[in-house]
Amino acid sequence: MKKVIFAGLGAMGWPMASNMLASGIDVTPCDVDIERVERFERQGGTKGDLENHLPAADGLFVMVVNAEQVRSLLFDGDMVKRLKPGACIVQMSTVSPGESARISHEVEAVRDDLHYVDAPVSGGVVGAQQGSLTIMAAGHPDALAACRGTFEVLGGAIFHAGDRAGQGAAFKAVNQLLCGVHIAAAAEALALAEKNGLNLEVMVEMLGGSSASSWMLKDRGPRMILPPEEITSVVDIFCKDLGIVCESAKQSRAYTPLAHAAYQLFVASSERGEGKLDDSQVIQTYRLLNGKG
Amino acid sequence: MKKVIFAGLGAMGWPMASNMLASGIDVTPCDVDIERVERFERQGGTKGDLENHLPAADGLFVMVVNAEQVRSLLFDGDMVKRLKPGACIVQMSTVSPGESARISHEVEAVRDDLHYVDAPVSGGVVGAQQGSLTIMAAGHPDALAACRGTFEVLGGAIFHAGDRAGQGAAFKAVNQLLCGVHIAAAAEALALAEKNGLNLEVMVEMLGGSSASSWMLKDRGPRMILPPEEITSVVDIFCKDLGIVCESAKQSRAYTPLAHAAYQLFVASSERGEGKLDDSQVIQTYRLLNGKG
Repeated sequence: MKKVIFAGLGAMGWPMASNMLASGIDVTPCDVDIERVERFERQGGTKGDLENHLPAADGLFVMVVNAEQVRSLLFDGDMVKRLKPGACIVQMSTVSPGESARISHEVEAVRDDLHYVDAPVSGGVVGAQQGSLTIMAAGHPDALAACRGTFEVLGGAIFHAGDRAGQGAAFKAVNQLLCGVHIAAAAEALALAEKNGLNLEVMVEMLGGSSASSWMLKDRGPRMILPPEEITSVVDIFCKDLGIVCESAKQSRAYTPLAHAAYQLFVASSERGEGKLDDSQVIQTYRLLNGKG
Repeated sequence: MKKVIFAGLGAMGWPMASNMLASGIDVTPCDVDIERVERFERQGGTKGDLENHLPAADGLFVMVVNAEQVRSLLFDGDMVKRLKPGACIVQMSTVSPGESARISHEVEAVRDDLHYVDAPVSGGVVGAQQGSLTIMAAGHPDALAACRGTFEVLGGAIFHAGDRAGQGAAFKAVNQLLCGVHIAAAAEALALAEKNGLNLEVMVEMLGGSSASSWMLKDRGPRMILPPEEITSVVDIFCKDLGIVCESAKQSRAYTPLAHAAYQLFVASSERGEGKLDDSQVIQTYRLLNGKG
């Protein structure tokens, strides 16, 4: 792809679009926040009326907050109608598998000559900045082949999640199930250690080197003992992502007791007003219930 | 320590005692199975009546199945009474923190001139064979110092869990909480993927390289997709270990919803007659509930 539209210049979208730009791709920015669009243009983004750039774009990349924003972006204006035949809509925001499949059908109802690629990512803001995201892409093989080069700019690992929209989102839901449960499990384990009066620093070191280890334990464990100064991902993100996991389980009628329990722990943190804290602070819900809060 | 008694020549104890022997320690074997004792003696273990060796031993190492066996070993005969003053009882079997503390007190009631070291391990049979166990040792600093050299023969990582019996067992419970929850979470995630018709091989590869990864996912994940030919640890071990985690949580009145949910999944597998299968096969409980069993 030589020329793309990038919609959604948030914490994830901005560095992703910036990496595309740095790799030589012609990127036209799109965001409801005009100031951000202008800032991106000053950084090298293609200027001018979006309407004029749409018919020339090989791809429309979407990285917004939820399914509602995806629909608003695609259907409130003429976005879908103005794309050239054969162009790819690359939907990278985290939505549920059912929503992803539905949005794909809604696009098809308007235009049957476009490709819809369902390609959520994991790796967070750091992965977006470093171009090391994990990309789980589902769609027509021709469309995935067309996206390949651009995906390589954004991610260190690209996986073929399937041929149908919804399968990328389903991959992401499975991924987030483990991420969320692992954070909650680390909190449960360290809160139990705390309740037993054990040395938490020794504990985190021990667990990180044993078969009890997880990526999340190593990353979030130290931040549960000493609250972090910097926040990389907040509690509310996991309320959203584990909510999507639970929705995905409901849609496919699957049994997910650990994901549901973890979801409720994050929601409890958020409802106490701690939604904007680092997600490691879900341990406060355990402390509260353990009489240590 | 130059001379020890090693009690419990099972799947864990045998390789541990063998590694001690190979390092030049004088090891007198002890087991209810006389044939095993004789086999160990032929391998280089010290022969002769245990009663005569007890007063000369620097340490009595215990690696049996549960607290009942520990008590039977220590108190049914004259074991504790015949140890020399200052000798260490090194209790490495997995028991609950409360049981560990109580056994220590029971020893003290018989003899107040012995050291009791609460030193459970993690790393399984492979770790025992390779001498790469993680050891979580709690006890008097003098006793821990006396054990240090022998621990280094058994383990690659030795942690100071505390100064009181029970704290080693509490460390182990926290460790097993994560191990058990991580196996169950991997099963939940892969069963959800299966229910969605996703490619499980691609899924396991993706998860193993993302922030969703855990030691257990990488080890057990592939065995959930293709049942393993070899069994390294069975479902019933986690029924026992997560049972101890739940008991530990009850003793300390801590909130552990994930551990309890995971425990019940392993118990359900065992109750269906699958307790002797590889622990990765807890995924069958999910498959059954997902209509895929």
